[in-house]
Amino acid sequence: MKKSFELALKQAEKALKRSEVPIGALLMKDGKIIARAHNQTEKKKTFLAHAEMICIQRACKKLNSKYLTGCDLFVTLEPCLMCRTAAKLSRIKNIYYLTKSEKFGSRGPGYFKSKNRRITSPLTQRSVDLLQDFFRQRR
Amino acid sequence: MKKSFELALKQAEKALKRSEVPIGALLMKDGKIIARAHNQTEKKKTFLAHAEMICIQRACKKLNSKYLTGCDLFVTLEPCLMCRTAAKLSRIKNIYYLTKSEKFGSRGPGYFKSKNRRITSPLTQRSVDLLQDFFRQRR
Repeated sequence: MKKSFELALKQAEKALKRSEVPIGALLMKDGKIIARAHNQTEKKKTFLAHAEMICIQRACKKLNSKYLTGCDLFVTLEPCLMCRTAAKLSRIKNIYYLTKSEKFGSRGPGYFKSKNRRITSPLTQRSVDLLQDFFRQRR
Repeated sequence: MKKSFELALKQAEKALKRSEVPIGALLMKDGKIIARAHNQTEKKKTFLAHAEMICIQRACKKLNSKYLTGCDLFVTLEPCLMCRTAAKLSRIKNIYYLTKSEKFGSRGPGYFKSKNRRITSPLTQRSVDLLQDFFRQRR
């Protein structure tokens, strides 16, 4: 585990050198490195370029699978809810991090003051139909 | 709003044609379309390719900014926690959706049974120092 965190920290240092918020991530499976990444929010000009997200994307590509079953994620800072959910959807087994993020950690305050509203419209049924048709075909 | 949802549904139909789970998203700002996308989870082989995520990525590129202030997101299905947090981080104003997602909606059950653990290690201080150095330089 120490070795994994050392490598994640190297990624964080890489981010720092490139004037990015210094956060690094590493994905391991059965003792092998699957992917590593540093935060690239500034370069890519989007929050989707968090270290964990790039790491997950690279791992999916490498393993040619949307499921990262059996993989563990090592991060230098507590992942935000976006990254944590991405890991969950991708079936990552464990997430280990070094430092708690008071503001952006997944238990942080004030995440969802923004509106998130279901709109009832004549189009609602169409969106339901589309999904039902899809899953009916698959079963 | 009806027009926006019609366009989002067109994206969902596009996904269906390509054997993807039929979900579509649209980003609007001041009555103008900024970006649109359909779910590409199967093609891209990663859950990071949810319609909302591709839409946000395209919008950031188009506006050359990680902040999508003043933008509204229209989705055919209730966004998952990853997409909802991505929208929040990107400062998207409102999220409107047509259909509630019982399983994967952001209030869905069973999200975080996976482990998410802070590890106390001699490396913890290094990860804190890196972040503090970065933000000290910036202030």
